[in-house]
Amino acid sequence: MSTAKTTRQAISPELLESPFAKALVQHIRANDPYGTYRNWTDELLLKPFVVSKAQKREISVEGDVDPLTKGRIMAFYRAIAARIEQQTGQLSQVVIDLSHEGFGWALVFSGRLLIVVRTLRDAQRFGFDSLEKLIAEGETLTNAGIELATRHAEICKL
Amino acid sequence: MSTAKTTRQAISPELLESPFAKALVQHIRANDPYGTYRNWTDELLLKPFVVSKAQKREISVEGDVDPLTKGRIMAFYRAIAARIEQQTGQLSQVVIDLSHEGFGWALVFSGRLLIVVRTLRDAQRFGFDSLEKLIAEGETLTNAGIELATRHAEICKL
Repeated sequence: MSTAKTTRQAISPELLESPFAKALVQHIRANDPYGTYRNWTDELLLKPFVVSKAQKREISVEGDVDPLTKGRIMAFYRAIAARIEQQTGQLSQVVIDLSHEGFGWALVFSGRLLIVVRTLRDAQRFGFDSLEKLIAEGETLTNAGIELATRHAEICKL
Repeated sequence: MSTAKTTRQAISPELLESPFAKALVQHIRANDPYGTYRNWTDELLLKPFVVSKAQKREISVEGDVDPLTKGRIMAFYRAIAARIEQQTGQLSQVVIDLSHEGFGWALVFSGRLLIVVRTLRDAQRFGFDSLEKLIAEGETLTNAGIELATRHAEICKL
């Protein structure tokens, strides 16, 4: 068991060097006015994005989404928007619309083009099984977004 | 003075027959499960959308937007979305994202196309100078939206 645990926690340094992981870390550090995270490793900064299935079950979906969770949802989609900006040169906006019951939308748009459209459900439990999954999901959404923004560049300019 | 007041309150029946006014009234009546508004005239239903400059000054922009005001913002943009659906056959979604300070976004989208994009400021004071202005603004946004959705119908289908 303990071996399994160690294996799960070890993350390959290349993964943390992926463009999405770097954008997410950069976003978190940019929102750290008091330098709380100055001496934290990138891996430690991304840890709160990992929420196991067992942990999720323990989080109530009654009532409002915790502000820290909301902040992580925002950071995740802002990192995608930042990557799309870097790659396409199109300014992107992020809108997160959450009801008090944890339902809502996550939107990334550029001009009149919606680059990412996601419905959110049980947002109180936002998180990924592992750092690998977090980064893979971020990269997938980013790449699909870049592809769309490139194909319909004229809508981004409206 | 009293003549001026009477003139301001009289609204031509044709205006209330405009497609946007009808869509807005229909939306309000559809959200009236207890039949509170059953015997109200259309004009009376739309009255709360009229907020004079003097009234606006009296509304504080500190703190949250009143739920009734939020409901009116939602109704206004949902009526636009309903009109665009009627005219283009494209399903439309409305997302209102308001911070606790009354700033935010109103978005109407269809597929990957943003049909209406509005930033909201001092949303606590949402309202129009007159019913005429309310309806004119609704019609303008609707027509611009229909034009856009028709020109880029392929993006609506993504």
